[in-house]
Amino acid sequence: MSDFLTQLNSLLPPDRIYTDPVDCYAYAYDNSQKIYPPDVVAFPLTSDEVQAIVVLCNIHKVPLTPRGRGTGTAGGSVPDQGGIALSLERMLRITVVDPANRVIVAEPGVLNQTVQDTAKPYGFFWPPDPSSAAYSSIGGNLATSAGGPHAVKYGTTREHVLGVKAVTGKGEAVKTGCYTTKGVVGYDLTRLLIGSEGTLAVITEATLKLTPLPQAIGGLVAHFRDDASCAAAIVSIMSLSQTPSALEFLDAGSLNLIRGRFPEMLPADSGAMLMIEVDGSPREITESSAAILSACKNDGLLQAECVLDTINLWQMRKALSPLLRDIAPKKINEDVVVPITTLPEFLNGLSKLSSQYQVSNVNLGHAGNGNIHVNLLVNPDNLDEMNRAEKCLNEIFDLVIRLNGTLSGEHGIGREKRAYIDKEIDITTMTLMKDIKRVFDPNNILNPGKLFL
Amino acid sequence: MSDFLTQLNSLLPPDRIYTDPVDCYAYAYDNSQKIYPPDVVAFPLTSDEVQAIVVLCNIHKVPLTPRGRGTGTAGGSVPDQGGIALSLERMLRITVVDPANRVIVAEPGVLNQTVQDTAKPYGFFWPPDPSSAAYSSIGGNLATSAGGPHAVKYGTTREHVLGVKAVTGKGEAVKTGCYTTKGVVGYDLTRLLIGSEGTLAVITEATLKLTPLPQAIGGLVAHFRDDASCAAAIVSIMSLSQTPSALEFLDAGSLNLIRGRFPEMLPADSGAMLMIEVDGSPREITESSAAILSACKNDGLLQAECVLDTINLWQMRKALSPLLRDIAPKKINEDVVVPITTLPEFLNGLSKLSSQYQVSNVNLGHAGNGNIHVNLLVNPDNLDEMNRAEKCLNEIFDLVIRLNGTLSGEHGIGREKRAYIDKEIDITTMTLMKDIKRVFDPNNILNPGKLFL
Repeated sequence: MSDFLTQLNSLLPPDRIYTDPVDCYAYAYDNSQKIYPPDVVAFPLTSDEVQAIVVLCNIHKVPLTPRGRGTGTAGGSVPDQGGIALSLERMLRITVVDPANRVIVAEPGVLNQTVQDTAKPYGFFWPPDPSSAAYSSIGGNLATSAGGPHAVKYGTTREHVLGVKAVTGKGEAVKTGCYTTKGVVGYDLTRLLIGSEGTLAVITEATLKLTPLPQAIGGLVAHFRDDASCAAAIVSIMSLSQTPSALEFLDAGSLNLIRGRFPEMLPADSGAMLMIEVDGSPREITESSAAILSACKNDGLLQAECVLDTINLWQMRKALSPLLRDIAPKKINEDVVVPITTLPEFLNGLSKLSSQYQVSNVNLGHAGNGNIHVNLLVNPDNLDEMNRAEKCLNEIFDLVIRLNGTLSGEHGIGREKRAYIDKEIDITTMTLMKDIKRVFDPNNILNPGKLFL
Repeated sequence: MSDFLTQLNSLLPPDRIYTDPVDCYAYAYDNSQKIYPPDVVAFPLTSDEVQAIVVLCNIHKVPLTPRGRGTGTAGGSVPDQGGIALSLERMLRITVVDPANRVIVAEPGVLNQTVQDTAKPYGFFWPPDPSSAAYSSIGGNLATSAGGPHAVKYGTTREHVLGVKAVTGKGEAVKTGCYTTKGVVGYDLTRLLIGSEGTLAVITEATLKLTPLPQAIGGLVAHFRDDASCAAAIVSIMSLSQTPSALEFLDAGSLNLIRGRFPEMLPADSGAMLMIEVDGSPREITESSAAILSACKNDGLLQAECVLDTINLWQMRKALSPLLRDIAPKKINEDVVVPITTLPEFLNGLSKLSSQYQVSNVNLGHAGNGNIHVNLLVNPDNLDEMNRAEKCLNEIFDLVIRLNGTLSGEHGIGREKRAYIDKEIDITTMTLMKDIKRVFDPNNILNPGKLFL
């Protein structure tokens, strides 16, 4: 390590290398709340510096964990094998702002919010909208193919990147994709890198495809007697020709949490709620809202209406995460996805597993994608409860797979779900993925042990 | 080869193996019009049969060229190294029709049109729309990441596939992606296979994501004095918040061809034309049309108007390809893409190169993506002209790359553009692609020599 550090010091000035454990500690964790301090933190400013560092790590066989702003929840950026945390947070340049071609080119440290702020004056936005958008970086967004509530209409990160520059685990600089919205020359390495959680290459620049801002936004809320009737409404809404720009589901547990804080906000008998956003011209919003209100009508509908104050609507939704953290600071937060039509069966199954293992859970999320955040409200100091939660989680994942779903819609596997990935990916396909990893990173330098061991 | 054939005969019944050169001839070419007969044609019906054949090819080192309906224009399905043409045209089952989850699962031989016909009664469509949609198969659509006029609003194939089953060149059955619209578990092998032109794996099943049919469709036409003013209008249109569902450009050469056949159809002074489609509710169409008509206004605009008969509009566009073939049956048809703002410079450059090399060209295409079909109207029997055309094409590709464009927006590289791929992809990135090829297909069995040698 001391040879390595000497050489690293020849690559970067002292203010861009941390070795003091106190400094390194801030780079030891992400939102998975697991803590593994790196031996050293480096802050490259250019692709060339990234490349030089990766080459050095290969020579000395030092693990390198790339890192954006550490907002991930699956432990993808936790340097759990020590070595170097490569923080891209100082690669902050937006090198191209080209609204006429609907393109922004940015370095990985640029915040998602900065991209939005840059695009907005020209009438555009970049659709990926993780809840961390205000303080997560686009490098991290790409590494996880981040998405959020608006994915139901606009898709996730992989649909909104035209190309990248990256340094492979081997230390080679590559350029993928193109600058235009169409392009089929060679293999789609862009999408291969997006969502690869920093295990194949370090992204040093991304060409982002912009989307026109909608003219206006409208909101609706609908309350239902129970999960089953709410899920039926979700299916009806998703078969309309108007796709909502967000379709968020809150179960009874979520609603009870909100009631505790805002007693007047919700009808007393609501057992499940949809928070819906539509966008477009004012006329489109009127039309879409009418169609959605009609699709909500079933035996279990208690009330459904348009809301004028959409900002307030989303604040209520955003208040939920802190409320959940208040009652269970170390909750287990999953982001499984099931086919929309199986939501009733899935929610029913969750309820049964919750009873069986006596682990309380709260479920909410991006219903239009079938993407449900399952929160197990556990106390990690209660070993018996943690043991039951682990068994419960295992059965939840089995249920998801049985319903033809997927273990993660937006968080990724990281280290947190590594033990479960075999439930979804068969051994042959997994071996192929490991072989691809080996092509990019023969010495297993880049984020070793993430996704798979 | 005789051992190979004996073993192949033990895998498939006689009516699913062709060895007679007369029968094989129909599988010797695609729309690139190059002819290389295979030694044998096989028609598997199941993924297991595909796998058994690929394994056999590995044992005997026999090249295997997967093939849909042979509508590609880049020679991707031409068995130019002999061996076996693997025709997927009899794998015709649609195994899942699941409108509530917006999914159709289909085998590779299913025609694009069949998918549309299956989805339509439920109010959905599958957006990829190559001009061959009526008779091209989804396996081929995936192999090339096919797109067409509607890609400007809806994207290409890679945005509309959730997952695939495939047999790698090694002969291993893999399963990629998932059944839901979100999913970030493991590497995105789905997108890696889409557009890989049958060089990595044979796709044996695809999970297609459906999109709601628009309520209605509207059309507009706009005529301009020249390319420059038309290109300016394209930029204005693409900066609107309403994205057209198609934005097709026809240059003076295209218009003259149409005039020859339909003298009354076009204004005499039109030097460039846009054919525009908008979709949505009737109100949206009214709004979008007004915005687009306004965006067309510039010094060079001759006239712009809504057209009621959109079917007629598209028939005129579709008439162009046969007209071009009438005057130049062996024309060179490229599908380069340039950033939209560079269209004026690109079209001007094309004009100069056409004069310089005395090769007449006709340019048209998907302007909203900057995807221009450059047709060099050559006679292959004229060796001097072919020689000039080759030099001209080389300079056209250089111009495309200089403008930050890409060599192919929808046709792919196949064998036709293999000699030019190095202009776009640097040697390091190309080596990485070849290494990936080796992981999937270590014996170089699958479509050898396509994309790169």
